Amino acid sequence: MAASTFPLKDELDIVIPTIRNLDFLEMWRPFFQPYHLIIVQDGDPSKVIKVPNGFDYELYNRNDIKKILGPKASCISFKDSACRCFGYMVSKKKYIFTIDDDCFVAKDPTGKDIDALRQHINNLLHPSTPYFFNTLYDPFTDGADFVRGYPFSLREGVPTAVSHGLWLNIPDYDAPTQLVKPRERNTRYVDAVMTIPKGILFPMCGMNLAFDRTLIGPAMYFGLMGDGQPIGRYDDMWAGWCVKVICDHLGLGIKTGLPYIWHSKASNPFVNLKKEYKGIFWQEEMIPFFQDAILPKECTTVQSCYKELAKQVKDKLGKIDPYFVKLADA
Amino acid sequence: MAASTFPLKDELDIVIPTIRNLDFLEMWRPFFQPYHLIIVQDGDPSKVIKVPNGFDYELYNRNDIKKILGPKASCISFKDSACRCFGYMVSKKKYIFTIDDDCFVAKDPTGKDIDALRQHINNLLHPSTPYFFNTLYDPFTDGADFVRGYPFSLREGVPTAVSHGLWLNIPDYDAPTQLVKPRERNTRYVDAVMTIPKGILFPMCGMNLAFDRTLIGPAMYFGLMGDGQPIGRYDDMWAGWCVKVICDHLGLGIKTGLPYIWHSKASNPFVNLKKEYKGIFWQEEMIPFFQDAILPKECTTVQSCYKELAKQVKDKLGKIDPYFVKLADA
Repeated sequence: MAASTFPLKDELDIVIPTIRNLDFLEMWRPFFQPYHLIIVQDGDPSKVIKVPNGFDYELYNRNDIKKILGPKASCISFKDSACRCFGYMVSKKKYIFTIDDDCFVAKDPTGKDIDALRQHINNLLHPSTPYFFNTLYDPFTDGADFVRGYPFSLREGVPTAVSHGLWLNIPDYDAPTQLVKPRERNTRYVDAVMTIPKGILFPMCGMNLAFDRTLIGPAMYFGLMGDGQPIGRYDDMWAGWCVKVICDHLGLGIKTGLPYIWHSKASNPFVNLKKEYKGIFWQEEMIPFFQDAILPKECTTVQSCYKELAKQVKDKLGKIDPYFVKLADA
Repeated sequence: MAASTFPLKDELDIVIPTIRNLDFLEMWRPFFQPYHLIIVQDGDPSKVIKVPNGFDYELYNRNDIKKILGPKASCISFKDSACRCFGYMVSKKKYIFTIDDDCFVAKDPTGKDIDALRQHINNLLHPSTPYFFNTLYDPFTDGADFVRGYPFSLREGVPTAVSHGLWLNIPDYDAPTQLVKPRERNTRYVDAVMTIPKGILFPMCGMNLAFDRTLIGPAMYFGLMGDGQPIGRYDDMWAGWCVKVICDHLGLGIKTGLPYIWHSKASNPFVNLKKEYKGIFWQEEMIPFFQDAILPKECTTVQSCYKELAKQVKDKLGKIDPYFVKLADA
């Protein structure tokens, strides 16, 4: 990619759901300092996050959110990383990169620090190819292309709305898998980016994620999770399923793979099980719902798609638990 | 995988479409010698292929094929690698591995020789997961699993029918791409195996391919290509589209990725363009045909699926060129 497309300083915000460890910012300083940070402080608003010198940032705690949104503040989750979507809302930039505070800079197999942000932007600036599988993965990567048998009419691709990055070290497992495999670490660096094909859902993890807010922003709502809600740790999954259905409908692409970050800390599997257990049942009904969801042709904007999807959630998932009615209304 | 599942000597045949260079067999000797080889000699039957000592093999030339099949021999392509499917027909084993004679042993990033056969068998012995995308790729690989948000009901997977391996060095490009990028080499070792999701077609390359003959054998027909036919170099693509539609219908899986082989020789792009040019037009109509193809519920075997698909080919593609009528009949 041409150097002139970077650093896109005026086109990208970095949204961080909370910062419990200031080493996080020091480690990312060479990569993040040129950009504007939006920090959404979860939990006790009386605690003060001291952002080190040199960063350009705005910080919102729960009191700020209540002040700004008034009664609508209930849509923003509390004590769950879903609070990050308040940051998406206040941003006015084209691109958003969101990352958790337990994610550090990873190294590639040659030992070099990975500039995750640069790779995400690269993914978003190149088209996706959701209609046909390319066996050499992303055809827009240096040294790759479309292989023999790839229809020429599909090579132009579609705009990329989402770039889903992966994690080395602690894998993103559910509580039961964490309990069964407490020592498993992800050490496999898979040097690939690929489009998730049309019609196929995927588990979107919010730990290391970038998206084009102008293309898909309104659908990146992480649901009602955490404090006062019957479910947690499904915020990003929920958003991922909604986003995928809407991208498929609107002809937008989602990429997964590079860049890797270093995920430093496994969360407590016992606490996670408590948060997740309803989701583990519910997802068996939610997945078929999203797999079968059809949006009418009249829905040509993300907003209208999302409203229609919310209506279908209320109608079809409302019977599983009244929580879905509340979620749909939100 | 347990060592006891290897070497499967009695369960696997290696099918090689022709051998123009005997270094090929010497290079693969440590890996191939325990297995039975079926060599289908393409071109002039008066030429003699001298197979080095120590290999267990049977060799068929065009005269043998005519003798065995009689008038039906016209179904087996001549002067095109599609002749290999005669080998699939005479094999009685559960698994087939097929490889071209310009494919050598590749090295992994640590410099170790890759045992492609072992990796293919590993792919075939583990289930596929075509209904939902796993962001850490094959969940059955050592050190990997299903990630958070992957529905538990889909984790059992489906039987794997096909293992599609990749190539380092010379990429498998069509003639136009070869002409545009004559110096491009594939140097990217992507350490991953993945299931191609349901409903998505892919370009299946026959260079480095293994499959379960008992599951999908009858659909692995490489079509009528080469001498006397209007088209070449679409043999494997054609088979891949048929196989994918049938696997999706029957609930079988197809994996792509590892193992790599070293593809030594680029074929001549000018000759290729002559062979391919009709295919390049036709594929723009063939792909939508296969994307939309629906097989009736009554088709519960590969044979009945293939016959039904042939009927649909005749009806819907017959108008593009009478070649498709001939192909469907074959």
